Amino acid sequence: MPDRPLVPDPPPDEVRLRLTVAYDGTLFHGFALQPEVRTVAGVLGGAISTVLRRAVTLSCAGRTDAGVHGWGQVVSFDAPADVDPAWLADRVNSLLGPEIVVRQASVAAPDFDARFSARWRMYRYTILNQRAPDPFRARWAWHVPRPLELHSMVLACDPLVGEHDFASFCRRPPRSPGGADPSTTRRVLDARWVEGGPGVLRFEIRASSFCHQMVRSLVGTLVDVGAGRRKAGEVTGILRARDRAAAGPVAPPHGLCLWAVGYDDA
Amino acid sequence: MPDRPLVPDPPPDEVRLRLTVAYDGTLFHGFALQPEVRTVAGVLGGAISTVLRRAVTLSCAGRTDAGVHGWGQVVSFDAPADVDPAWLADRVNSLLGPEIVVRQASVAAPDFDARFSARWRMYRYTILNQRAPDPFRARWAWHVPRPLELHSMVLACDPLVGEHDFASFCRRPPRSPGGADPSTTRRVLDARWVEGGPGVLRFEIRASSFCHQMVRSLVGTLVDVGAGRRKAGEVTGILRARDRAAAGPVAPPHGLCLWAVGYDDA
Repeated sequence: MPDRPLVPDPPPDEVRLRLTVAYDGTLFHGFALQPEVRTVAGVLGGAISTVLRRAVTLSCAGRTDAGVHGWGQVVSFDAPADVDPAWLADRVNSLLGPEIVVRQASVAAPDFDARFSARWRMYRYTILNQRAPDPFRARWAWHVPRPLELHSMVLACDPLVGEHDFASFCRRPPRSPGGADPSTTRRVLDARWVEGGPGVLRFEIRASSFCHQMVRSLVGTLVDVGAGRRKAGEVTGILRARDRAAAGPVAPPHGLCLWAVGYDDA
Repeated sequence: MPDRPLVPDPPPDEVRLRLTVAYDGTLFHGFALQPEVRTVAGVLGGAISTVLRRAVTLSCAGRTDAGVHGWGQVVSFDAPADVDPAWLADRVNSLLGPEIVVRQASVAAPDFDARFSARWRMYRYTILNQRAPDPFRARWAWHVPRPLELHSMVLACDPLVGEHDFASFCRRPPRSPGGADPSTTRRVLDARWVEGGPGVLRFEIRASSFCHQMVRSLVGTLVDVGAGRRKAGEVTGILRARDRAAAGPVAPPHGLCLWAVGYDDA
């Protein structure tokens, strides 16, 4: 997790607002603002700007990739002190339609920052593990028709918990000019598989923060274990290799959802 | 329910096949074949034809409207006797992608017909009854932000059960030239509201058959009751009026799903 930089408090007569936001990531090029493509931050920030009649800069807990969904994404920004958060949420929701929804809105402490105040992020990855696809799960679940052996996938989670260098499971971040490689060490608080009804397997992982494509890369490797292509005991060796080539394929984005973010107050 | 017409048995060396089909109706102009628009029967029949390398004519249990979904839709058609139903289902599913999925396939009795052998149809209508919309339910649930009083909606279901003329809840079918008006009398076996998790209300209704827009028209009226715009006791009078203008608005199609169809063998 990056050291916390100095995040300035809101100016006088303004407050820091905190929103919990859900979105169907299918038709977005990810969360973060990008020029000329449709992103969640672009559409959400545009709606907030329209309601407040001013520019806003959003901080977010997790910059999800293209096609990844959000249920408990958190954003923060400053607004005039007389803005009622519930009113703002209703107005933004009526502008946006159901693709992006503000689920909760509140005034936060002046030093709250959705990104730098976060203690942990929890992602959930959903797999539909049955022969036939399902039209009502296709947008949110990776369809794996081959039977998966859940017990070995559960065992394979154990070595992930704790502080490790996850370089084998990370898309290598760019090196800053003349600088050192950014760290790929992360602290995983828990990682588990849960059965979510007939044919549905869910991987839930909570960590201080995640490197790029880390969850999808872990899921790809764990599914290799469940399909018998690797053994559960190999995960420790893959971690030690610190080599992207040692791990399995990257699971597709549409099974992934930023499920919850933890702060000191909740 | 129409009297059963003579459905011819399959020709020699052929069998009657029965498929259970699920579909996301969002991007279809309903189930029934229509020229120049995308329908479930058109896309599904096209895939079956491609796999069998011959034309097929589908009979179906319920001709759902544009935007209405299917989970337990049943279709029947004839195929060469050496076709393995499970193989056909896999091939059709791999051609179609997840928007339409064959969930089950089997050889039926020679006189089986998906439409005329059906004893009952069960539809399920889903309402999201909370202030905020939900991106993960928006495709399959009608968002009603105003709080609904479930108890009065449950009471209002009672008068619907049994054999009644549902003319007040039906889009009037066209009169055949020189003929009598088609009957709008139907037998409802059961009708109930169930809570489906936080904020989710489901209306489930089972009947011998349904007139056009009957479920959506009932839901529109029952939601009027839940919102306090009508009283539960008015439903009997609306039925007796046999007048479309007496009932409430027609609920939108995307909350509706053909959930199950009953036959003598199951």
